[in-house]
Amino acid sequence: MKIVITGGAGFLGQRLARRLLEQGSLTDAAGERRRISEIVLLDVVAAGGFSDSRLREVTGDIADPDLMRQVVDGNTASIFHLAAVVSGQAEADFDLGMRINLDASRQLLDVCRQLGHRPRVVFTSSVAVYGGRLPAMVDDETAREPQSSYGVQKAIGELLLCDYHRRGFIDGRVLRLPTISVRPGKPNKAASSFASGIIREPLNDVETVCPVSPESRLWLLSPRQAIASLIAGHELSDEALGQRRCVNLPGISVSVQEMVDALGRVAGASAVERIRWQADPVVQRIVGGWPAAWDTGRADVLGLAGDADFESIVRAYVEDDLPLAAKSSGQQS
Amino acid sequence: MKIVITGGAGFLGQRLARRLLEQGSLTDAAGERRRISEIVLLDVVAAGGFSDSRLREVTGDIADPDLMRQVVDGNTASIFHLAAVVSGQAEADFDLGMRINLDASRQLLDVCRQLGHRPRVVFTSSVAVYGGRLPAMVDDETAREPQSSYGVQKAIGELLLCDYHRRGFIDGRVLRLPTISVRPGKPNKAASSFASGIIREPLNDVETVCPVSPESRLWLLSPRQAIASLIAGHELSDEALGQRRCVNLPGISVSVQEMVDALGRVAGASAVERIRWQADPVVQRIVGGWPAAWDTGRADVLGLAGDADFESIVRAYVEDDLPLAAKSSGQQS
Repeated sequence: MKIVITGGAGFLGQRLARRLLEQGSLTDAAGERRRISEIVLLDVVAAGGFSDSRLREVTGDIADPDLMRQVVDGNTASIFHLAAVVSGQAEADFDLGMRINLDASRQLLDVCRQLGHRPRVVFTSSVAVYGGRLPAMVDDETAREPQSSYGVQKAIGELLLCDYHRRGFIDGRVLRLPTISVRPGKPNKAASSFASGIIREPLNDVETVCPVSPESRLWLLSPRQAIASLIAGHELSDEALGQRRCVNLPGISVSVQEMVDALGRVAGASAVERIRWQADPVVQRIVGGWPAAWDTGRADVLGLAGDADFESIVRAYVEDDLPLAAKSSGQQS
Repeated sequence: MKIVITGGAGFLGQRLARRLLEQGSLTDAAGERRRISEIVLLDVVAAGGFSDSRLREVTGDIADPDLMRQVVDGNTASIFHLAAVVSGQAEADFDLGMRINLDASRQLLDVCRQLGHRPRVVFTSSVAVYGGRLPAMVDDETAREPQSSYGVQKAIGELLLCDYHRRGFIDGRVLRLPTISVRPGKPNKAASSFASGIIREPLNDVETVCPVSPESRLWLLSPRQAIASLIAGHELSDEALGQRRCVNLPGISVSVQEMVDALGRVAGASAVERIRWQADPVVQRIVGGWPAAWDTGRADVLGLAGDADFESIVRAYVEDDLPLAAKSSGQQS
């Protein structure tokens, strides 16, 4: 069984690949458990650091149809389509966002369609598809009224995937990710970058800025549970999803204050003191537009699980990532 | 003031052009009433039959960016983007639907963006953006869950237009049209083609087939009111629409039986006898998936009006179109 991960050099892509290599098998479209023979990471850069003969890295422009056709071939059973330009960047560079978030996604769907064997496609979307006048409780069927170019591009990707699925070109499923926290590495250009930074930086003895008020609420998922959910979402049978191919993954709803309190419990007051509170009206406005409450009952029924609480997310970061971050701190500075 | 109408050779495009030539002026982005100096009809075929020096026809592929750039130039104040492949055709020819309904729309938006003067774009969308599990009452904010490729392509066009508007590239507005009835001319490949055929054909002494049950409910707008609404939608100020750029135009909700009864009152029992009832499960299923009830209160507040009742729609067809149909019946047969 051959698997392609677009955006495979990103941190979720790499972790997904490692997890898949560890477990060694996945369910195919016929519901049979099959040995993973090959995983291809397709990205603009190479992840490096893999030493498993089943893993291959291909670098290039994912909006290039020829490259896509080379990678996603007749042997490809499943594709995890994670490649994306993040929210802040898609807002700053409109054309880049359109090319990667829209054109490349459509390209991928078209290549799958041409293959004719109806490969399984797991597409990661985002809660950024929601916005505007939101109901008190958001669920899988809430209207998509995105207020950012990133959200628009993701919403279009969802619509296309659902139509390609409906027409029988692919076996498609959309998993809408909450904000991932604690994301390892460096800050990125997402408006939500601080949701990891205010925990990660203090744990690494680095000063950080929190651009939103302590009362601001976030909807979070840990990298561990995100990977577990991507795999669980892949394993769902076609019938379990039926005609409703988009699922909001369960997050936990926490205030920034609660996040900082959890940081204090895990790493002490000195860690908390690393956070400088400096409001950024732009980020505050964006975060304020995110949904306040979620009904992810459908994901629960489908067996897709979130995290227990934010403190366990912080502890997972300390276990999984802090040792790596400490090791590479020489190169990072 | 220069105006471009894409799909301008279609029956709505031609009528819109005639109406605009008659009234001679439109409101510009600054809210000033301005004389219409030029109307360009852009379509794959020429409409013909115009003898007004202000009107120019350009034929070609509207998905061709060079052609689009030639037509939509720095002098273009407003664009009515009506060009589309209809529902049945977009379902039968996936690539054609994607090219005309999606690529050409995006092309147009990009040409407008490059112009830099924020032209006004009126985009006609469709109630086909709705589907799946619908609420009892559909309004402007109901979730778009289209169940056809046409509906998906229109929903994507809406999302793109709203983002291009939000970013200040255009002054965009989306008008979602009910099913147009009574559409003159010949049957087309839309699933709703019968909604005109069961009235038009009997009035022209031609046999016709009704593929759905008499209880089936439709949501209808006459050509007259559609044109009035397109113009009224153009004339709305930017502020009147605010951030909510998509408006469902008010239709009237009638059953097929009520339509046939109105036909009988206008044209007698012999007209009704021209209808053969022959259920088509495919069409019945599509029509059954359309929303049952509508709340178009927002359109009312904005001053966009529908028809009084179906009988007046039938009478309008008899006044506006029957003489023309009779005149050209020699060529039609």
